[in-house]
Amino acid sequence: MSQTEFVVGIDLGGSNIRAAVVSQQGEIKAWAQAPIEAARGVEQGIQRIQNLIRQVMEQAGIRQIAGIGFGSTGPIDRKRGLIQNPYTLPGWENVDIRTPLSRAFDAPLIMENDADAAALGEAWLGSGKGTSRFALVTVGTGVGSAFILGGQIYRGMDGEHPEAGHQVLDPNGPPCYCGARGCLESLASGPAIAESARRLIQQYPNSSLARLHQSGQIIEATHVTEAARQGDEFAQKIIREAGCYLGLGLVNLILFYLPECIALGGGVMKNYDLFFPHIQQVLRQHDVVVPTRRVRLVPASLGNKAGVLGAARAIWLELKG
Amino acid sequence: MSQTEFVVGIDLGGSNIRAAVVSQQGEIKAWAQAPIEAARGVEQGIQRIQNLIRQVMEQAGIRQIAGIGFGSTGPIDRKRGLIQNPYTLPGWENVDIRTPLSRAFDAPLIMENDADAAALGEAWLGSGKGTSRFALVTVGTGVGSAFILGGQIYRGMDGEHPEAGHQVLDPNGPPCYCGARGCLESLASGPAIAESARRLIQQYPNSSLARLHQSGQIIEATHVTEAARQGDEFAQKIIREAGCYLGLGLVNLILFYLPECIALGGGVMKNYDLFFPHIQQVLRQHDVVVPTRRVRLVPASLGNKAGVLGAARAIWLELKG
Repeated sequence: MSQTEFVVGIDLGGSNIRAAVVSQQGEIKAWAQAPIEAARGVEQGIQRIQNLIRQVMEQAGIRQIAGIGFGSTGPIDRKRGLIQNPYTLPGWENVDIRTPLSRAFDAPLIMENDADAAALGEAWLGSGKGTSRFALVTVGTGVGSAFILGGQIYRGMDGEHPEAGHQVLDPNGPPCYCGARGCLESLASGPAIAESARRLIQQYPNSSLARLHQSGQIIEATHVTEAARQGDEFAQKIIREAGCYLGLGLVNLILFYLPECIALGGGVMKNYDLFFPHIQQVLRQHDVVVPTRRVRLVPASLGNKAGVLGAARAIWLELKG
Repeated sequence: MSQTEFVVGIDLGGSNIRAAVVSQQGEIKAWAQAPIEAARGVEQGIQRIQNLIRQVMEQAGIRQIAGIGFGSTGPIDRKRGLIQNPYTLPGWENVDIRTPLSRAFDAPLIMENDADAAALGEAWLGSGKGTSRFALVTVGTGVGSAFILGGQIYRGMDGEHPEAGHQVLDPNGPPCYCGARGCLESLASGPAIAESARRLIQQYPNSSLARLHQSGQIIEATHVTEAARQGDEFAQKIIREAGCYLGLGLVNLILFYLPECIALGGGVMKNYDLFFPHIQQVLRQHDVVVPTRRVRLVPASLGNKAGVLGAARAIWLELKG
């Protein structure tokens, strides 16, 4: 094994690949991102990843790394180091990431689900620092979750990772590909918020969203949050409903995990302040059999660095035990 | 510390107190139970517990014990060894159990919530034996839960224990004292099943339950399970609905914990076979983002011995590390 004091953390999403050179203390020596353009094929994709790693190593002025932590949009086969995600990365099924990258950089590679990596990063250096039980819930195109217990990623049977975003909250809710009706993702993700707005818009002809809709614009979640921020009552109602469902989802999370801290991340949570009062109200209402009031609820704090830092932490944990 | 090879495990419920002398391998050398009659007061109650411990020690032919594991209906203050349960044990608030029993038997005492103790017993010697992640869900007057991770009771912040029975499953469901509408307990506990039957009985005048109701009998959950077993369609419908909600509750549990095995215990689950097909169907329907199909679902197997064995295990873990 190399004696270098740095590892590379990778964060592979559906659109972008990010890489950072990270010390054992969590210092970022170099950082870069580039589009992955997954549809151009696996071979070119792996080449892009390698180029990005070389780029950050050069920026950091190092010629060797002790290991690679690779956080990827799932599903993945963690043990074998495979990406199996034709949904987000078209054509990427059974893609062996470990073999080519380990060979190219003469370094061990550990792979983690991206939600797990982001949570590990937040628990190490961000919103969950110093906690023994920390949950991250990401609200964006989907709703993801991860749980960090004693500084380690919580894994279920066969290494499976939790999916609190698909918990059932309302059996009369919208259908989801997960098999449920009314799972959290179907009620409070970005697309769910947009869909709610589109479904109810006829009833609120005076809303600014209705005017946008009439102008031919397809309503997205960002339109709803913008309108809510500008005082549009219909948009505020949509946010309130999603916020209440998020609150119920967090009540359930607390009933199972009883964490000291929950952080909310993901694209939709850039508007954390809009959702927070509704979530908080639901948590207070359910503060009876478990102390929901004592759980610290915060926005995730590492932004687009959480994934690379968590991936780096994962390989450091592997290397140093 | 005493050099004896036995401990005493206690299981204190709302009606009965059970005690067993248990070896480090889980062998029960003596067992007894007696009514607690909590309303007669704390002092007499503690006396009854002491008498029962002396009785089982005599039966086992031992004069000393290495420790006492005390499982109790909650809420309890685990660290201070207090019972704080005026709900189930009238008048028992801030009752110090540790001091008098430790003194009387010259032995350390560890206290656990009864659901945690039962789960620890099942994981040690029963339905969860050999698993790394084991959940017990008890369905009776309430719905309780516990999670055993790596052979130890999973505890949340400040030692709090999970309460999966109060997870929200249907925000349009019945109100519960926990602050929720439509928590699992409000939808699938014994009283919830009875309440469903009483609410809908007018619509099913040909049901055997309707005839029972007309005769002046107050319908309880046991009447519903009996009628279902005899082919009554209305009763079967009630069981199916409760079974489906239990299934949804277990789907959520799997999404958070991903256990190898879930055991169902408690009074209502004496009719496990009636509920199982409905639970199973819901689990299969949700086998998409997590492998619900791979989770082993079984009835709890230690019956009324789970609590004393788990309490014994808890003190053995404390003594031997």
